[in-house]
Amino acid sequence: MKSYPYPMLNRPPFYYHTNRELDERKVHEWIEQVDVENKEKWSAYDAVILGVPLSRSSISASSASENPEAFRRAWKSFTTYNLDEDLDLSTLNIVDLGDVREHVTDISVCHENIREAMKAIRTHHSQAMPIVVGGDHSITAMLVKGYKDVHHNERIGILQFDTHFDLRDTKELGPANGTPIRQLIESQTVQGKDVYNIGLHGFFNARSLKQYADEVGLQYFTMKQTRKVGIEKIVQQALNELNKKVDKIYVTVDMDVLDISVAPGAPVSTPGGMYIHELLEAVQIAGQHQKVSAMDIVCLDPQKDVAQATVKTGVHVMLSFLTGYKQREF
Amino acid sequence: MKSYPYPMLNRPPFYYHTNRELDERKVHEWIEQVDVENKEKWSAYDAVILGVPLSRSSISASSASENPEAFRRAWKSFTTYNLDEDLDLSTLNIVDLGDVREHVTDISVCHENIREAMKAIRTHHSQAMPIVVGGDHSITAMLVKGYKDVHHNERIGILQFDTHFDLRDTKELGPANGTPIRQLIESQTVQGKDVYNIGLHGFFNARSLKQYADEVGLQYFTMKQTRKVGIEKIVQQALNELNKKVDKIYVTVDMDVLDISVAPGAPVSTPGGMYIHELLEAVQIAGQHQKVSAMDIVCLDPQKDVAQATVKTGVHVMLSFLTGYKQREF
Amino acid sequence: MKSYPYPMLNRPPFYYHTNRELDERKVHEWIEQVDVENKEKWSAYDAVILGVPLSRSSISASSASENPEAFRRAWKSFTTYNLDEDLDLSTLNIVDLGDVREHVTDISVCHENIREAMKAIRTHHSQAMPIVVGGDHSITAMLVKGYKDVHHNERIGILQFDTHFDLRDTKELGPANGTPIRQLIESQTVQGKDVYNIGLHGFFNARSLKQYADEVGLQYFTMKQTRKVGIEKIVQQALNELNKKVDKIYVTVDMDVLDISVAPGAPVSTPGGMYIHELLEAVQIAGQHQKVSAMDIVCLDPQKDVAQATVKTGVHVMLSFLTGYKQREF
Amino acid sequence: MKSYPYPMLNRPPFYYHTNRELDERKVHEWIEQVDVENKEKWSAYDAVILGVPLSRSSISASSASENPEAFRRAWKSFTTYNLDEDLDLSTLNIVDLGDVREHVTDISVCHENIREAMKAIRTHHSQAMPIVVGGDHSITAMLVKGYKDVHHNERIGILQFDTHFDLRDTKELGPANGTPIRQLIESQTVQGKDVYNIGLHGFFNARSLKQYADEVGLQYFTMKQTRKVGIEKIVQQALNELNKKVDKIYVTVDMDVLDISVAPGAPVSTPGGMYIHELLEAVQIAGQHQKVSAMDIVCLDPQKDVAQATVKTGVHVMLSFLTGYKQREF
Amino acid sequence: MKSYPYPMLNRPPFYYHTNRELDERKVHEWIEQVDVENKEKWSAYDAVILGVPLSRSSISASSASENPEAFRRAWKSFTTYNLDEDLDLSTLNIVDLGDVREHVTDISVCHENIREAMKAIRTHHSQAMPIVVGGDHSITAMLVKGYKDVHHNERIGILQFDTHFDLRDTKELGPANGTPIRQLIESQTVQGKDVYNIGLHGFFNARSLKQYADEVGLQYFTMKQTRKVGIEKIVQQALNELNKKVDKIYVTVDMDVLDISVAPGAPVSTPGGMYIHELLEAVQIAGQHQKVSAMDIVCLDPQKDVAQATVKTGVHVMLSFLTGYKQREF
Amino acid sequence: MKSYPYPMLNRPPFYYHTNRELDERKVHEWIEQVDVENKEKWSAYDAVILGVPLSRSSISASSASENPEAFRRAWKSFTTYNLDEDLDLSTLNIVDLGDVREHVTDISVCHENIREAMKAIRTHHSQAMPIVVGGDHSITAMLVKGYKDVHHNERIGILQFDTHFDLRDTKELGPANGTPIRQLIESQTVQGKDVYNIGLHGFFNARSLKQYADEVGLQYFTMKQTRKVGIEKIVQQALNELNKKVDKIYVTVDMDVLDISVAPGAPVSTPGGMYIHELLEAVQIAGQHQKVSAMDIVCLDPQKDVAQATVKTGVHVMLSFLTGYKQREF
Repeated sequence: MKSYPYPMLNRPPFYYHTNRELDERKVHEWIEQVDVENKEKWSAYDAVILGVPLSRSSISASSASENPEAFRRAWKSFTTYNLDEDLDLSTLNIVDLGDVREHVTDISVCHENIREAMKAIRTHHSQAMPIVVGGDHSITAMLVKGYKDVHHNERIGILQFDTHFDLRDTKELGPANGTPIRQLIESQTVQGKDVYNIGLHGFFNARSLKQYADEVGLQYFTMKQTRKVGIEKIVQQALNELNKKVDKIYVTVDMDVLDISVAPGAPVSTPGGMYIHELLEAVQIAGQHQKVSAMDIVCLDPQKDVAQATVKTGVHVMLSFLTGYKQREF
Repeated sequence: MKSYPYPMLNRPPFYYHTNRELDERKVHEWIEQVDVENKEKWSAYDAVILGVPLSRSSISASSASENPEAFRRAWKSFTTYNLDEDLDLSTLNIVDLGDVREHVTDISVCHENIREAMKAIRTHHSQAMPIVVGGDHSITAMLVKGYKDVHHNERIGILQFDTHFDLRDTKELGPANGTPIRQLIESQTVQGKDVYNIGLHGFFNARSLKQYADEVGLQYFTMKQTRKVGIEKIVQQALNELNKKVDKIYVTVDMDVLDISVAPGAPVSTPGGMYIHELLEAVQIAGQHQKVSAMDIVCLDPQKDVAQATVKTGVHVMLSFLTGYKQREF
Repeated sequence: MKSYPYPMLNRPPFYYHTNRELDERKVHEWIEQVDVENKEKWSAYDAVILGVPLSRSSISASSASENPEAFRRAWKSFTTYNLDEDLDLSTLNIVDLGDVREHVTDISVCHENIREAMKAIRTHHSQAMPIVVGGDHSITAMLVKGYKDVHHNERIGILQFDTHFDLRDTKELGPANGTPIRQLIESQTVQGKDVYNIGLHGFFNARSLKQYADEVGLQYFTMKQTRKVGIEKIVQQALNELNKKVDKIYVTVDMDVLDISVAPGAPVSTPGGMYIHELLEAVQIAGQHQKVSAMDIVCLDPQKDVAQATVKTGVHVMLSFLTGYKQREF
Repeated sequence: MKSYPYPMLNRPPFYYHTNRELDERKVHEWIEQVDVENKEKWSAYDAVILGVPLSRSSISASSASENPEAFRRAWKSFTTYNLDEDLDLSTLNIVDLGDVREHVTDISVCHENIREAMKAIRTHHSQAMPIVVGGDHSITAMLVKGYKDVHHNERIGILQFDTHFDLRDTKELGPANGTPIRQLIESQTVQGKDVYNIGLHGFFNARSLKQYADEVGLQYFTMKQTRKVGIEKIVQQALNELNKKVDKIYVTVDMDVLDISVAPGAPVSTPGGMYIHELLEAVQIAGQHQKVSAMDIVCLDPQKDVAQATVKTGVHVMLSFLTGYKQREF
Repeated sequence: MKSYPYPMLNRPPFYYHTNRELDERKVHEWIEQVDVENKEKWSAYDAVILGVPLSRSSISASSASENPEAFRRAWKSFTTYNLDEDLDLSTLNIVDLGDVREHVTDISVCHENIREAMKAIRTHHSQAMPIVVGGDHSITAMLVKGYKDVHHNERIGILQFDTHFDLRDTKELGPANGTPIRQLIESQTVQGKDVYNIGLHGFFNARSLKQYADEVGLQYFTMKQTRKVGIEKIVQQALNELNKKVDKIYVTVDMDVLDISVAPGAPVSTPGGMYIHELLEAVQIAGQHQKVSAMDIVCLDPQKDVAQATVKTGVHVMLSFLTGYKQREF
Repeated sequence: MKSYPYPMLNRPPFYYHTNRELDERKVHEWIEQVDVENKEKWSAYDAVILGVPLSRSSISASSASENPEAFRRAWKSFTTYNLDEDLDLSTLNIVDLGDVREHVTDISVCHENIREAMKAIRTHHSQAMPIVVGGDHSITAMLVKGYKDVHHNERIGILQFDTHFDLRDTKELGPANGTPIRQLIESQTVQGKDVYNIGLHGFFNARSLKQYADEVGLQYFTMKQTRKVGIEKIVQQALNELNKKVDKIYVTVDMDVLDISVAPGAPVSTPGGMYIHELLEAVQIAGQHQKVSAMDIVCLDPQKDVAQATVKTGVHVMLSFLTGYKQREF
């Protein structure tokens, strides 16, 4: 390449490698693309990222399907170094697998692909933490099922950050973004009492869903409780209880858990919700727990975002979770 | 009601009846809601409006499903009187049937409901012009099929205003917003040569689709041709040719036929498209033709609109079409 | 209606009754429209909602007049069930009276109508809590006067959440949105010492107004104080003091009390203001107090809002207040 | 000033005098502020600009009151030199008188001030062309009346560019932005047949207003006619006819005459309206006519504008009109 | 790759290869990235694309530096097939060289790199048409100089589409976006009479610049002239005249030539400018001319764009130019 | 002026003097423009404001250069009276010097002018607190150098509120907005250990910068620490430590220290940042300290702001700082 006559150019796809200190790494320079030829490397990954560009299963119209691509663009503005913790994520091997293929008009095909993708991840990268970037919340049912397909002997718990129960009935809606937790309970993938929801509040859930939650023993902490006790303690308590009951914990973050004033890109976020620094703290604590084994981030619609604020917050949620993950003693 | 003690109030749903001349009528005061009890009135309607809030069948994420509701809000700012033509639409009996019920996760149910709705319209309001407010372009296939179900002996032609052919293959996409015309041709609902597309241009269609169009004899006029000849003449020519071949003409307006600079609410509108006054003129001419028997307006996404500009333009398209309709000698 | 041939349609005005559990109720399904024929029902209402679409009395240009309609649209996304409190509002009888009729160019006619409307409410629905959705803050003077017209022997106190005193001089402005509290004091409708303002702060009030406030004995807590002590205690203290002095407490919420970062739809909100969860808590506590007898929400401009965030917050303020109201021992 | 130690500063109010050729003049450097001390200069002005920040008389909520200030900011980006015509406006003496003082809650005071302002202009700057920057259309009635107060023996005609007749009844609305032309006719300030309206179209006027227009002999050209014949010829014809009948012509430009796609800052602009280059041409022709003696620009709401597009268009309307004015043989 | 276990995934960078007919090609699938190892291929390119992310040389703050990246994202929504002309661009070999490296605080380094990049292009891809995506207009001076460095014996003419002369003085501004044409004339790179500017109009140029233009014999057509004669004829005339005088023609498109109502992303676009279909036609004609040998597109600021409208228009300008280029008889 | 015939007008530049109590003062009525003729007054100023409209030295494209003008417009909505503290700023003599003249293409000229401006301020208004309104953060290096030029014997410390270290290397970037603190350290204007940064957090700084910071002994508190301890205590601690070491403290506020959800106009603000009320409290405390001798506010881009929220917050930062300043015992 010595003879290449364009010393004055930055060439694609290297647009972003300029103007920075040599030892600075941006997130997109750290996250690799999967090496499809080299099977040996597959088992060495510490984490794998999977995009799920599906939101036509959303009750109200959503462009959350565009979030995986928006995420990849937004993480270019983050370094791999967490200053609060003096910790660099870049020693983790992390790979971006790309996006689950979606069918335009047959949602069941989409859902099956998602389940298959998680199965493949658990099969081929068994050491790696799956990080799934949705998409709407319907994907969580399929991801946990896919996880369970591989780990059928393990009891799986769920730690959910959400304004909603997501316990609506599939008889009416099919497998939509309002139903995933109910689907998992009804299919006996997960037990009701192994689901911990943090962030519920206000006038955004039907009473019938609260009754269903109580019947199946689902655990939850409202924002009012959470604010009084402090998010750290609440998350710790949920993890402690789950720890006694389950083998693996799946973390699902519905970005609408955030307050409406801080998350324009989470279109059904509501007044009275969580603040950003609370959510970042919460997922870091979750990431630290040995039994936490997968996570997803859903219901983030980049079309409705303002100045990438919510997409960047979503990326930070992922990085804070990975910070916790790296803080575990391996 | 004499004794009602609130002479100082405007009561819902009468919010809009204030501050206007007595003989002024706004569109929402003219369009009635269907009288479900009184079957005799059903056959007296001159036109029926049907909302189709479906856009999860759209290739890219779309909120066109919110357009029927946006339409109903926007038409409150229009009078029934067309000043250019000195003609008042309010002598037409027109009814709003409401919206086709959609399933959240099973698009085939949605499509079947749409087809059934058009069948019911053609059965119960046989004198009425159906005006369908989409939704995305996938609905057109079902609407024409529903029409054909009732009028199975009639040859149906299509006058399409569109930047795209909408001839993509359902094998790949299923019945999406890129496929309706192909579906109609392949199902032999409509013959290729009976489809007239006005507004195609630029770099927005695959060559293969043009080749398919030529093979099936589909007729089209690019924007470049249209601009040179004049929209009036082009539409007249298309109607004249269709008149010789078919029994009924179905008009479908994809709002993305408009130039990208004038239609923010038509998210796949493109540079080089039609201007608003051209489209208004075109549909008025179409409305005048005796064989024109149904029309739809699709691919208008109110979430992406700016200051209701495109939604209002869509409403005007409907009213200009009805102007032409009223100008027929009944 | 058995024979109605459109089983596949949702008909207006029932657009919103779909896709939900049978026992779920949305706010718009709970709030009734007034039954003008049936006088017996009038006295059975627990609460009445009155819209006041007036904002041409605002010092700076405002579209707060569009807020009542925006409120009604926004409350469709709220359920009647408050999860934090495990309490369902739907056992309250609540009616929407509609909007006060406004004159386009004679503001004194508007104001008189508002006063008459409150008088009619207090006369015909004497058991009901009036909830008034403004409009700008000028309406509060007329609402309290209308209240006093009926309850002329009662001493009325005011609990105000506001960034401003609203004590400006009507000699200069007439009865504008900067003057209502002064109007009430000068007309001896309310005593200065019976007004409690929470939320004042920063550089948004003239010193002369503070001096006037001190002269008339008006009580206030700045945001700085409020933040130190905690909103709960401050509101409780204000209510306790008022309880000793007055017969009835009127609550007025100027949405500009919120911080500029959380209330885009409150155009004169300012840096350093209240956060949403604080305001929700404050009004719930106020709603619980036996002497609180009316409330209004003002200065919310939907035209300036971003993604309905502030309108939804306003609706939540109303629902949190009603939560407190229902928590009283009747 | 030699000793002033800040050679490196641009001082207010001279912020804009930098980075330009010495012989370039921006509009704000050309338009002077009135010299209140020096009465001799008053009669030497060729044109005077008057701001009228009134829009609380608008039927729908409007911030057109902010337009005079927005205008003054926007004209800083225009030079005084018209390249199309190779003509420099800067040889005209032009003065900015400032804004009419408005009352916050008494619209009749506002209107009286406007009338007085025009009377003062006609009295003290009798050689100057008044250019009035609104504000909503209600101001036109007062401006023409003020003009007539001074020129009571002269017959005044009106050349109006507007989507609406503005002939609504003051009995219902008072003197609002929908009524000015009717007010002028009913007060016999102007005869119906001396009003020429260009730009009416579509579904934006009640039939009753058209009937009223016909009864009083008002002249108008719809956009459809205008587009067929060409704006130049239509304007010329209107001026020719007015020339035979009246002594003075008042030009009023309601910015909502523009198409909805080109005028985001004219909130009631509509589909099917005029394009910008047509309006610019129209007002230049009007400016050239010897009898044209005043003009106003109304109903421009900077709060709804996008990137100053409509405000800049409004400024260009003023400058194109002045171009025509300067092209007269004095 | 058979064994790769993710048949259900679309992998980066292949996100965009889904859901399309096999013979459909999107622009990003056609434009290759340069093969730095394989020098033989370098001379086979028909066209090369160069990004120039420089806009800190802009008089007013600009983010035009982000345009090359925005272009690359936007062209993914274009096919290679031009339907109006039944012509497929994909038979052209075209390569994306990437972006010129810019210095953050030393603009002269940026400019030198730009000049060097054009020199390298003309040296190593002598058969290829350079297409340069700016950046602000200051880059044109360096690009033409770089071109001239290699072709020093050739007389170069310029065909400019612009609202401005760009003839301001570098003594005051340095080499900014207002000065490039003057720089080229003063450095004798280009003769004044060999510059043809189409699109000048209104109040956006100082008289002194017009005088300078006349002194150096610069040719121009205002928008008023252009609209009367028709853009086709004007462009043809300019090319004919240039053809007689020069060896090579450089085409520069300043996007602010477009009307303010159609180009939100061209921040100094103005009222009275060119419409999109006119510009597309103009550049296609230019592309057809044998002597046209390079082109650039400048002053497009994606940060100010609305829904990618202007960026997409810019991409279409490039594709329309290449359409003309391919229509030449090679 | 008695005879001036326009009693009904507000004249420019007096637009804002209306509709207010006589003893109310808005900030723009308090801040004077410098009296260039009257040198005696120069030394009587308590504070001077300097605008620095430079942002072409910003790494990513920025319009922070427009902030000084935006500031001046925004402060018209603030009174001089701080209600929280019952303190009126208007007894301070404060003058607006205007803006530093900037060169369009030579950033070193801009920087030199900035340094000279601070030198002149310290020379001619030695009693005055300099308040500098940027502009991007590159200006801080020049301002502190200019300060040091005059006070060369004094040890200067820096109190920085920032999400970033701003310690990047000028070898790569030149003197950009990422480098000022490093420039000051390397030029020995300031010692590393005399820099206190509050607000650092998350993934927004390269590890190498943290290492550099540690090497030079720079002091910092992350947001996580700050939130735990409380902003008041952290600021107090930083001031206490600085007090022991230095003679003068320069305060620099990079608005990106604010959380991304509260500062749309600070384009590189990030998730997890400071809240507005915390920053206001912090700068007030800083203003109270006797050794604090200058402050700047940087990286505020009004083009990206939403409804002036961040610009108004910036103005409040200035006023809160001045509140502290006035609270000192003089």
